[in-house]
Amino acid sequence: MPEVSKRGVRMPESPIRKLVPYADQAKAKGIKVYHLNIGQPDLPTPQIAIDAIRNIDRKILEYSPSEGIRSYREKLAKYYHKFKIDVSPENIIITAGGSEAITYAFLACLDPGDEIIVPEPSYANYTAFAIVAGAIVKTIPSKIEEGFALPPMEKFETLITPRTKGIMICNPNNPTGYLYTQSEMNAIRDLVKKYDLYLFSDEVYREFCYTGAPYISAFHLEGIEENVILVDSVSKRYSECGLRIGALITKNKTVYHNVLKFCQARLSPPLIGQIAAEASLDTPDAYMLEVYNEYVERRKFLIDGLNRINGVYSPIPMGAFYTVARLPVDDSDKFCQWLLSDFSYENQTIFMSPATGFYTTPGLGLNEVRIAYVLKKEDLAISLKILEEALKIYPGRVDA
Amino acid sequence: MPEVSKRGVRMPESPIRKLVPYADQAKAKGIKVYHLNIGQPDLPTPQIAIDAIRNIDRKILEYSPSEGIRSYREKLAKYYHKFKIDVSPENIIITAGGSEAITYAFLACLDPGDEIIVPEPSYANYTAFAIVAGAIVKTIPSKIEEGFALPPMEKFETLITPRTKGIMICNPNNPTGYLYTQSEMNAIRDLVKKYDLYLFSDEVYREFCYTGAPYISAFHLEGIEENVILVDSVSKRYSECGLRIGALITKNKTVYHNVLKFCQARLSPPLIGQIAAEASLDTPDAYMLEVYNEYVERRKFLIDGLNRINGVYSPIPMGAFYTVARLPVDDSDKFCQWLLSDFSYENQTIFMSPATGFYTTPGLGLNEVRIAYVLKKEDLAISLKILEEALKIYPGRVDA
Repeated sequence: MPEVSKRGVRMPESPIRKLVPYADQAKAKGIKVYHLNIGQPDLPTPQIAIDAIRNIDRKILEYSPSEGIRSYREKLAKYYHKFKIDVSPENIIITAGGSEAITYAFLACLDPGDEIIVPEPSYANYTAFAIVAGAIVKTIPSKIEEGFALPPMEKFETLITPRTKGIMICNPNNPTGYLYTQSEMNAIRDLVKKYDLYLFSDEVYREFCYTGAPYISAFHLEGIEENVILVDSVSKRYSECGLRIGALITKNKTVYHNVLKFCQARLSPPLIGQIAAEASLDTPDAYMLEVYNEYVERRKFLIDGLNRINGVYSPIPMGAFYTVARLPVDDSDKFCQWLLSDFSYENQTIFMSPATGFYTTPGLGLNEVRIAYVLKKEDLAISLKILEEALKIYPGRVDA
Repeated sequence: MPEVSKRGVRMPESPIRKLVPYADQAKAKGIKVYHLNIGQPDLPTPQIAIDAIRNIDRKILEYSPSEGIRSYREKLAKYYHKFKIDVSPENIIITAGGSEAITYAFLACLDPGDEIIVPEPSYANYTAFAIVAGAIVKTIPSKIEEGFALPPMEKFETLITPRTKGIMICNPNNPTGYLYTQSEMNAIRDLVKKYDLYLFSDEVYREFCYTGAPYISAFHLEGIEENVILVDSVSKRYSECGLRIGALITKNKTVYHNVLKFCQARLSPPLIGQIAAEASLDTPDAYMLEVYNEYVERRKFLIDGLNRINGVYSPIPMGAFYTVARLPVDDSDKFCQWLLSDFSYENQTIFMSPATGFYTTPGLGLNEVRIAYVLKKEDLAISLKILEEALKIYPGRVDA
C-alpha cells in the first residue's frame, strides 16, 4: 500500500474525541451523560433562520459566488458597523464555517516553515489548520493563577524568529473565557507593528461578554488595519453550528485576492446556510438578550458551584461560554475517562474536556478541564454534584 | 506589510474567471450572454430535495458527525451498490462538495514534493488542490484527434519517479466528456499495482453516460481496492451545486483514518445539505430519465451543430455534459474574450471556456474551447449560430 502523508500522521487526535467511545459505552450501560465537553449551544436557533430555510423558493440550488452572496455580505458589513468594525462587503469572504476561514487565512499567508505565535491554552484546531498549511505553531502559556491573562510581550518576543509571520488570538477566548483588555490589545498591536506580523483574530464569541468590560476587536486597533485577518462564524451566536457559515474579513487587498483564489477553487460556500445566516441578521434583540441573560446566569451558577467544591478552582470567565477549571487530580485525561468508564452517581455522569488538548507544551493542563456551560441550570446543578462526588472517590486525587 | 504566501501567489487564476468581467460588461451594454462556460446545470433540483429543506423540523441546527450523518451514509452505500460499487457506510466520509473530498484526499495522502500524474485536459482545480497539499501535478496530454482517449501507459511510465504517489482521473471526464473503456481502466489498474500508487478517481458524472458503453468505476478494478480513493458529489446528478455536499470513499482504513482527522478539525459537513442530499436518493427514476434524455438530445444537437460549422471539430463525448471542440482561431483566450468584448450577433453573444485553463503544458488548448451543454436546445441553436457568425469575422481566424 502507498504510504499516507506525514502531514496526516502528524494531525493530532483530540483528547476529547478519544473519550467519545467511553461516553458511548456509558450510555449503552444506561448511564445518563451530561455533555459539558462541546461548544454546541443547547439554545434554539432563531426562528427567523429556520423560517428562511422552510420558505426556500428556488427551482435550482445553484452555486453562489465564491466570496459569498452579495446581499449577505452587505448586511454583514452593517452588522459589524454596530461593533464599530468599519468594513465593507468587499472586505468579506463567506466561508464554510470559521474553520475554512482559518484554513484559507493560513494557506494564503503562511508558507511551510513559517511560524505563528498563539497564547495557550487555545482552540486545538488552530494547530490542525496550521499543519494543513505546513506552518509551525509556537505557544506561550497563559496561567490559571492569572486568570489566563495575556502573557507579557517579552515572552512573545523571545519566540520571534525570521520565520515568524503572525499571531493568532481568540477573543473572547475559547477555552478560557478570557476577554483581552484594551492595554493587552494595544500590546499586541505594538508587537504586530514592530515585527510586521499578521494578526489572525478569531472573534466568534463577541456577543458573549459578561463583565461590562469592552470587547476590543482586532479591527479597533489603529495602524495595523492591513495586518488584521478577522475570523467569524454564525455557529455560536445563533446556535447554527450545522450551517457551516463563517467569514474571513480583511482590509488587505493582497491577502483578500490570495484567499479568494483558494475560495474559487472550492467554488462556493453553502447556499442554504448563507440564506439562513442572512436572515439571522434580523434576529430580534429579544432573542439575543434572552440568550445573553441565560449565559450570564449559567456562568455565575457554574463558577460559584465549581469554587465551592473542595480542591476545585475556576477563574471567572469574562466571555464566551467556557471555563477552564483546576481540579485536584493527577491527570485530567485519566480523570475525564474514568468519569465515563468507571464512575456514575445515581446512574449519571459528566463528559468534560481534558485541558491537555488545548495546550501544546507537554505537561500543561494535566490538572485542568474545560467546561462548556451549554446546558440548562438544572443540568449544571446535577453536573456539579456529580463532579463533587466523583472527586471524593477518584483514586488519582491529588491535593495541591 | 507581511508577505502573502508563495503558495497563494502560485494558485492559478482560471482563464474562465478572468473573462467574467467582460461578460458583465457585455450584459451592461444590453447584450444577452449565453453561458456555455460553467458546469452549473440549468435543470431543476428534484422536488423531493427542495421539499426536504422546506420541511426541516428542528429547533437547533446542530453540528453533524464529522464523517457525515449515519443514515445518509447508509443510503449512499446502497446507491453505490446499484453501480456494483461494493462499499459500506464505514468507507464513506461526507464532505463540503467534491472539492473538499479532493483536498483532503491529497492532504491525507500526499506530502509536499510528492507527485501525481493527471491526463490533460483536466479539471483545473485539481492543480489548485494539489498546491494546497504542496504536491506536484504532472500531466500527459490526451489528443482531440484521438477523441481524448487515455494516453498510452508508456507515457505515464516516463513520468514516474520515486516521488510519484498517485494517478488522478475523472471518469466520465470533465472537460472532454470522454468515458474510459474497460481496457483503459485495466491499464490504469496495472500501473497502479506495478508502482503501488493511489488512484484518485472523480466519478461525479456517472449518471451521464450516453453511448451504451459501460461506466467502469475505479472500484470495479480488482486487486487495487485499497489504492482507490473515489470522489463524488451530488452537485451534477441532482443539480445541487449550491448544497456543497460531496463524498470521499475509500476501503483503505489508514487513509480513511487520516482523512477523518482533517474532517474532525473542520468539525462537520453542511447539515441542511446532507438532509437534502439524503432525500435526493429517493428521486423518482422518471426525473433521472428525463434529465438523461434531455442531455442525450442536447449532446447530439450540439455536436452535430459544431461539426457543421466550417473549420470547427468536436469529437463525440460519451459522458458528462461537456465537449472540447477545436476552433479555427489563433488563441482561444483571445477569441473567448473577443466574443464578449467586441462581438455580438443580433445583440447576443456566447461565453465559452478557453481550453487553455484545462491544460498545464504551455501552448496546448490554444485552439480549443470547452462547451457545457447546460442550456436548452433552443439556446444551443442560437449559440451555434452566434459561434458560426463570429468565426466568419474574427480577426484572428486561422484555418488549419
